[in-house]
Amino acid sequence: MRILITGGTGFIGKQLAQRLLDLGTLALDGQAPRTVERIVLFDAFDGEGVPSDPRLEVVTGDISDAPTLARITDGIDLVWHLAAVVSSAAEADFDLGMQVNLHGLMTLLETLRQQGRAPRLVYASGFAVFGGVLPHVVNDDTALTPQSSYGMQKAVGELLVADYARKGFIDGRVLRLPTIAVRPGKPNKAASTFFSSIIREPLAGLPAVCPVRPDTPVYLSSPRRAVESMLLAMTLAPEALGNQRVIPLPGLTTTVADMVAALERVAGPDAVKLIRWEPDATIQRIVESWPSRVEAPYARSLGFKADPDFDTLIRAHIEDTAAH
Amino acid sequence: MRILITGGTGFIGKQLAQRLLDLGTLALDGQAPRTVERIVLFDAFDGEGVPSDPRLEVVTGDISDAPTLARITDGIDLVWHLAAVVSSAAEADFDLGMQVNLHGLMTLLETLRQQGRAPRLVYASGFAVFGGVLPHVVNDDTALTPQSSYGMQKAVGELLVADYARKGFIDGRVLRLPTIAVRPGKPNKAASTFFSSIIREPLAGLPAVCPVRPDTPVYLSSPRRAVESMLLAMTLAPEALGNQRVIPLPGLTTTVADMVAALERVAGPDAVKLIRWEPDATIQRIVESWPSRVEAPYARSLGFKADPDFDTLIRAHIEDTAAH
Ligand SMILES: NC(=O)c1ccc[n+]([C@@H]2O[C@H](COP(=O)([O-])OP(=O)(O)OC[C@H]3O[C@@H](n4cnc5c(N)ncnc54)[C@H](O)[C@@H]3O)[C@@H](O)[C@H]2O)c1
Ligand SMILES: NC(=O)c1ccc[n+]([C@@H]2O[C@H](COP(=O)([O-])OP(=O)(O)OC[C@H]3O[C@@H](n4cnc5c(N)ncnc54)[C@H](O)[C@@H]3O)[C@@H](O)[C@H]2O)c1
Repeated sequence: MRILITGGTGFIGKQLAQRLLDLGTLALDGQAPRTVERIVLFDAFDGEGVPSDPRLEVVTGDISDAPTLARITDGIDLVWHLAAVVSSAAEADFDLGMQVNLHGLMTLLETLRQQGRAPRLVYASGFAVFGGVLPHVVNDDTALTPQSSYGMQKAVGELLVADYARKGFIDGRVLRLPTIAVRPGKPNKAASTFFSSIIREPLAGLPAVCPVRPDTPVYLSSPRRAVESMLLAMTLAPEALGNQRVIPLPGLTTTVADMVAALERVAGPDAVKLIRWEPDATIQRIVESWPSRVEAPYARSLGFKADPDFDTLIRAHIEDTAAH
Repeated sequence: MRILITGGTGFIGKQLAQRLLDLGTLALDGQAPRTVERIVLFDAFDGEGVPSDPRLEVVTGDISDAPTLARITDGIDLVWHLAAVVSSAAEADFDLGMQVNLHGLMTLLETLRQQGRAPRLVYASGFAVFGGVLPHVVNDDTALTPQSSYGMQKAVGELLVADYARKGFIDGRVLRLPTIAVRPGKPNKAASTFFSSIIREPLAGLPAVCPVRPDTPVYLSSPRRAVESMLLAMTLAPEALGNQRVIPLPGLTTTVADMVAALERVAGPDAVKLIRWEPDATIQRIVESWPSRVEAPYARSLGFKADPDFDTLIRAHIEDTAAH
């Protein structure tokens, strides 16, 4: 099987590629496993820490450039579309967000449609499609009310992928992902980046800033869990999904205070002292506009799972960091 | 005031233009009425029955052509964006629907944003943003589940207009319109076209075909009511709307049988005999996938109303036809 991962040298792209290389095969629709022959990581940047493997190739370019896309999608069986400009960046630079998050996806979908092979595609959406005044519990049927351009672009992406799938142009699947933490590396331009910093930095003996109140609720997934969901979304038979192509994922509902308490249990009180609390009204407002209590019966019926607790999530991060 | 109506030589565009010419002024935000100086009807076609008035100009061109849009939007204060490829046509010709309904809107929004004058814009969406398995009553918070490319394009349009408004690039307002009947003229490529034919043709002594069962429920607005809603949506103060830019409209919930009974009351049993019942499974399926029982508290709180009953609606159609 020939695989394309767009945004492939990003956080999830690299971890997904590594997991695919480790597995060596992928069983679609409960059928016999098929060999992972080739993985193309397409991204605007080369990226650091990309797995080194003869089956893997990094191609750099712009996701909204049609000729480039025609080249990289040629002969591809499976596509994970992860290329994106994250929330704060898409809000600060409207043109960039539209170009990558919307026109990039539209160019990709059109390219795949023109090729006429209806490949399988997993699209990474997120709970930023919600915002503003939300019901106490968000579920599979909650109306999309994005309050950021990133959230709007993801919501539009969900609708586009679902319609291209309904028309049979692609075999599309949309994952609506919780905030993924703990993210390795450096803080990025996502408003949610501190959810990772307040754990990652103290574990490495470094100071971190928490811009929100301790009682701020949050809806999380570990990177490992997100990667497993990416695999499951790709391998499910189309019949299992029918016309319901958007899969809001189960996640872990916790609070910043509980995250910090878990950090203390795992790494001791000195780690916690490295967190400086510096309230930022803008970030507080953005983060509070995302849902934190979510029911995801559809995903659960398909076999998707949430992380059990935040302690496990921190331990997995420590293991992954040690392995690299 | 300088006004642009895209899709302006279409059904609603012409009626809206006529109403604006008759009014002569428009009072925005409850302020003093301002003069309607100029109306540009922009459309792919010249159209028939366009009002003749020195204040009115018809410009033909393609809504997805950026240079054309830059020209027609120059100095414009108010835009009603009605240009669209209707449901069955957008389903049959995916490229055309995407080009007009999606890229056309995106080009228009970008053109207005680049001009930096943040004009007021009313966008015509519809209840085709819903489909499939719906709650018994659809309300303001029902999730968008389009089951047609037209419905997907309208849903995407709602999200785009709302985000451009949130960013302050335009002062956007979205009307989610019920099916509009009785439509004058000839049947078109909308799956809903028969809702008009089964009344219009018998009233003119002509035969009509009804492709759905008598018990099929329907959610309707008269053209007059739709035009009044278009005016109200434009004149409401931005403060009245805040961040809630999508306005699902109240309508008249009835059935095909009740429509035919009203026809009989108004025009006698001979009119009804002109209707031939020829079930079409595809049209039945499409029409049944639209909501018919709708609660629209937000619109009602803003002053939008539904037609009182279908008899009134038929009488208004007879009056309008006689006037032309
Ligand atoms: N991490 C999260 O918390 C989270 C939550 C919900 C959804 N998502 C979505 O999951 C996907 C992966 O997330 P991630 O955390 O790995 O993000 P990431 O920022 O690490 O990766 C995205 C990649 O896209 C690339 N990219 C940006 N512009 C591009 C362009 N023009 N052409 C090609 N590539 C371009 C970036 O260089 C980056 O490597 C994204 O679509 C993201 O929106 C992430
Ligand atoms: N009539 C209804 O029942 C109904 C219901 C819900 C929503 N709407 C929406 O309301 C709006 C007006 O509806 P209508 O019934 O007057 O439709 P209509 O088809 O009579 O008018 C649409 C106009 O758009 C024009 N158009 C098509 N492609 C174009 C292009 N490339 N460039 C410029 N113009 C182009 C057409 O020529 C037509 O005159 C549409 O956006 C429609 O989707 C209508």
